[in-house]
Amino acid sequence: MHSLLIIAHGSSREASNSEVRDLAKKVAAIAVNQFDNVSSAFLELAEPDIPTGIHLCAEAGATEITIVPYFLSAGRHVVEDIPREVDAAAIQHPSVKINLQSHIGSGVEMPALLLRFAYE
Amino acid sequence: MHSLLIIAHGSSREASNSEVRDLAKKVAAIAVNQFDNVSSAFLELAEPDIPTGIHLCAEAGATEITIVPYFLSAGRHVVEDIPREVDAAAIQHPSVKINLQSHIGSGVEMPALLLRFAYE
Repeated sequence: MHSLLIIAHGSSREASNSEVRDLAKKVAAIAVNQFDNVSSAFLELAEPDIPTGIHLCAEAGATEITIVPYFLSAGRHVVEDIPREVDAAAIQHPSVKINLQSHIGSGVEMPALLLRFAYE
Repeated sequence: MHSLLIIAHGSSREASNSEVRDLAKKVAAIAVNQFDNVSSAFLELAEPDIPTGIHLCAEAGATEITIVPYFLSAGRHVVEDIPREVDAAAIQHPSVKINLQSHIGSGVEMPALLLRFAYE
């Protein structure tokens, strides 16, 4: 069983966290052939946190968890905090294969996406 | 003269800020027919800050500045902090038309982009 876990920063503004949870639902809808479930977790300010998000996937039966950081820039959160939390959770779940992917801001389409928003 | 200003969060990790400045260069390269110049500013932790970024555009001769928040979620930074700083700068530059656009995380392509990163 393969789970996709989206990690976002988390906000004290609950509507912002809901955006992330809605995004997970939208990804789930287009990923039915690739992932058995799609969920989200937050680095701070919102629940579940990263260890809990990984634990929930494992508890639901995941044998593999692919994690995508929903971040634009490779700041300390992406380079240090998320890998550290994922590594710690991986030790707690040695039978689960965990793949930590690149942050989405490294996408080659970002310049064109940004330019589009100059007109929306 | 129409300027595009990209506003990012800013990081204590300088390589992250350089990513944003590089992004501005890439956007400039594909926007030569739409914008006379493209630059970046930061909400915190990096220079220039938002008031300075807007001031630099105006000083360079901008009569119109389009601002795109390079943020994924509509947290307090997007909903409160950036509009407040842009409004304050607009008062300082009454002859410049300032357009504050939506944050890029509201893009309809985000679910597909995120799913792609599950495999990169």
